[in-house]
Amino acid sequence: MKTSALGGTAAAASTLAAPAVAQGTRTLTMVTSVPEGFAVFDDAAQHFADLVTAMTDGALTVDKKPAGSLVGALEVFDAVSAGQADMYHSADYYFMNQHPAYAYFTAVPFGATGPEMMSWYQHGGGKELHDELGQIFGLKSFLAGNTGHQPGGWFNKEINSAADLQGLRFRMPGFGGKALGLTGASVQNIPGGEIYQALSSGAIEAAEWIGPFADERLGLQEVCEYYYTSGFHEPGSALSAAMNRDVWDSLTPAHQSIVETAAAATHSWSLAQSNANNAAALERLKASGVKVLQFSDDIWDAFGAASKQALDEFMGDDLFARTRASFEASVQGTYDWMSVSDSVFANQRNRVNNS
Amino acid sequence: MKTSALGGTAAAASTLAAPAVAQGTRTLTMVTSVPEGFAVFDDAAQHFADLVTAMTDGALTVDKKPAGSLVGALEVFDAVSAGQADMYHSADYYFMNQHPAYAYFTAVPFGATGPEMMSWYQHGGGKELHDELGQIFGLKSFLAGNTGHQPGGWFNKEINSAADLQGLRFRMPGFGGKALGLTGASVQNIPGGEIYQALSSGAIEAAEWIGPFADERLGLQEVCEYYYTSGFHEPGSALSAAMNRDVWDSLTPAHQSIVETAAAATHSWSLAQSNANNAAALERLKASGVKVLQFSDDIWDAFGAASKQALDEFMGDDLFARTRASFEASVQGTYDWMSVSDSVFANQRNRVNNS
Repeated sequence: MKTSALGGTAAAASTLAAPAVAQGTRTLTMVTSVPEGFAVFDDAAQHFADLVTAMTDGALTVDKKPAGSLVGALEVFDAVSAGQADMYHSADYYFMNQHPAYAYFTAVPFGATGPEMMSWYQHGGGKELHDELGQIFGLKSFLAGNTGHQPGGWFNKEINSAADLQGLRFRMPGFGGKALGLTGASVQNIPGGEIYQALSSGAIEAAEWIGPFADERLGLQEVCEYYYTSGFHEPGSALSAAMNRDVWDSLTPAHQSIVETAAAATHSWSLAQSNANNAAALERLKASGVKVLQFSDDIWDAFGAASKQALDEFMGDDLFARTRASFEASVQGTYDWMSVSDSVFANQRNRVNNS
Repeated sequence: MKTSALGGTAAAASTLAAPAVAQGTRTLTMVTSVPEGFAVFDDAAQHFADLVTAMTDGALTVDKKPAGSLVGALEVFDAVSAGQADMYHSADYYFMNQHPAYAYFTAVPFGATGPEMMSWYQHGGGKELHDELGQIFGLKSFLAGNTGHQPGGWFNKEINSAADLQGLRFRMPGFGGKALGLTGASVQNIPGGEIYQALSSGAIEAAEWIGPFADERLGLQEVCEYYYTSGFHEPGSALSAAMNRDVWDSLTPAHQSIVETAAAATHSWSLAQSNANNAAALERLKASGVKVLQFSDDIWDAFGAASKQALDEFMGDDLFARTRASFEASVQGTYDWMSVSDSVFANQRNRVNNS
């Protein structure tokens, strides 16, 4: 009887252990705003998903659903907010119509470079404001990627002064597009996949996309001769992951920490990816005949005035105003430091190495 | 009897379950090279430890042992290599005598800024070389912190030309110190805790430390009037975590992924911390009377030539030479990109905002 009881005990124990493991396995559906394999954007989504799955040993398995496979590219926000999907990976400025403050969690014109964004988000109050914004929509949000600085754009002629922007048919989305329109340009909003054809046919005369590494894959060097590598509209565009808040609340503290840390690690991994690959891509573009230029001061002046005007329109919203104030104070501080340290050094290193 | 048997089963199951949890719980002793609470350095060590503990739900609990409590500050490498401790958190250039290539995983003179370091490490071959280096010593290493750009130093007089460096009693450790010696300065190597007193007594005339946020706490503004905020010696110093390789090999893949991701997240978190806090600290230093200056071109020229000479001495070592080639190619590429994108933008933003 004693032996039998022990045998029974062992069986019962292993029966009890098995469901505990099964209970701990959960698939999280993550909808995204880009196609599978899309440079930079999907690389970040996949890196984030892989980290969560690996760190939880599959207890949380992220099932990535590219744009269009479950919901459309720009429907991911509402789908996760409503609980139709567990998470999204996207760029939060797509959701400016839900709340204008979302722009600050991707990019605003005359905003933050990648390193400045990291300082604001992690040490300057950005994360807390993202959280406050997410609460409104039943989301728990994290920065989880960064394209780095987005160039001023591709053109089929030189842009020598602000006057050259007048009536220019220029593809640019978001707050940058709003500001660009205020300079007198004719702003066009067309999807990435149609830019090549629109430039080729002359339907548009200028377009911005992501950066050399991604732009090269679209073949824009075949239809434009001029590339302005610094732009005003998206100085360091962050990507985001957001989880339905009920799903988030149901996770263990350890799994919450894993999701948050995977996102933070992906933010810097992704920024480093663009910064590591853009130079070589730019060299190839130059070799194919592209002329690399910078805008003149008076064009930057026009962009600056228009950017301020575009943002000022939303200052009636308290959360937008608080987010802007927090962001601008932090970005100014990080710039003030890096401009007298990193920048002075990097320029001197370049001068000395080439003298 | 049935009831009794079930009761016995339940008790046995909980007895069996407890050891399973206990087996999964493991304390990892992590020795560090700084005192508890030490700004920037210990902040990064603590952040890393907290992430590992939180993400494993305590299954891996990191027990941080500050410098001197288990082994001395610079003994951590040998202690972990020999298995006396499980991990260290330190700055790998302290271990240049074990192998000169370790300098590249903290900072070398005329080396990488923080963002450049991230690109090399994660996307330019740095991580793989760190791994190769660790294999020699039975270590699995990760970058896990970054102080950001370290200023040129504190001085009790203006340094107007390279001639002013001759015989100057200047505190600077590492490869930077080697290079500084080649410019004609009298290089002193004294611990951080003794810098204030040495400057105060006149034993030394100049010293570098970490950056405004950390330097302010040492009170260096009380004993020096001149602060050069850009320096050649440590353009973006990374901190490292390293685990004994037998300990690493004994971890589950999920726990390995957690340790690696915690380190990567800490690298950017730490860099963002310095970049977020240095500007405000620098403003306070200025308000207390400190004069903020930059070195002249001829001083940078002297630093550049000396840095090259100091690094060239070690080119007979194959791994050092390969690490240097990989590092320099990657850093140049990241600079080439950021200088025509982020930098142009940030300077234009500053010009427009202040015009």
